[in-house]
Amino acid sequence: MLFTTGDKFAAKFVVTKAVYDGFISVFKDKNPLHVDESFAMEHGFKGRVMHGNILNGFLSWFIGECLPAKNVIIHSQEIQYKNPVYLNDNLSFDAQVTGVFESVDVIEFKFSFKNADALVVAKGKFQIGLI
Amino acid sequence: MLFTTGDKFAAKFVVTKAVYDGFISVFKDKNPLHVDESFAMEHGFKGRVMHGNILNGFLSWFIGECLPAKNVIIHSQEIQYKNPVYLNDNLSFDAQVTGVFESVDVIEFKFSFKNADALVVAKGKFQIGLI
Repeated sequence: MLFTTGDKFAAKFVVTKAVYDGFISVFKDKNPLHVDESFAMEHGFKGRVMHGNILNGFLSWFIGECLPAKNVIIHSQEIQYKNPVYLNDNLSFDAQVTGVFESVDVIEFKFSFKNADALVVAKGKFQIGLI
Repeated sequence: MLFTTGDKFAAKFVVTKAVYDGFISVFKDKNPLHVDESFAMEHGFKGRVMHGNILNGFLSWFIGECLPAKNVIIHSQEIQYKNPVYLNDNLSFDAQVTGVFESVDVIEFKFSFKNADALVVAKGKFQIGLI
């Protein structure tokens, strides 16, 4: 088994304008919180809040491209959003293996995204299977 | 309150080539399961499996654009992937309000995506807050 409980992984992500514009171009979510600076500020945010599901896109890349096995498929994901992410935020991603179930080729992870102020912006867990 | 427990919503999505190519262009997840037809078929799939997080992008649009309130933010999401989604699959999305917590302006939903064979491809729940 390529995974052991306690294994740690890390990655860096930036919510660039290309990522933000690309996400909107693909998924068409133009909720005012994401696109209207005034609306976002009236509701107590520093500026337009980036779509939470951009982080799930980053997670897709991590699972598909950064693990020591390529023969993986996601079984489930959970994410809790704790603090807003803004345009050009630099995010530190950490993941850790929390369980390895060899008889069914399933591996569980927990993860977090932190911003440049070391504030957790999102955390959660996911389960993958080996195919 | 604009939401009542039991409220139902529905939407249709297609995983078009534009969505698939766009997702890869934004997030760079080129895991062979998603881009290599032979690899996917060798592992028992009918063809390239679409990224599960494309469904989370659809969910972003639903939450941001289709609800009776625009002043919403996602608190948390959970998704379980049950069956593969392939290119050009037509997906029926159903969501239902499972809880309304007025004192904290929080609304809980459950949802499912079904393919054209009425097979559940993914299901889960999410919680939003009114801002």
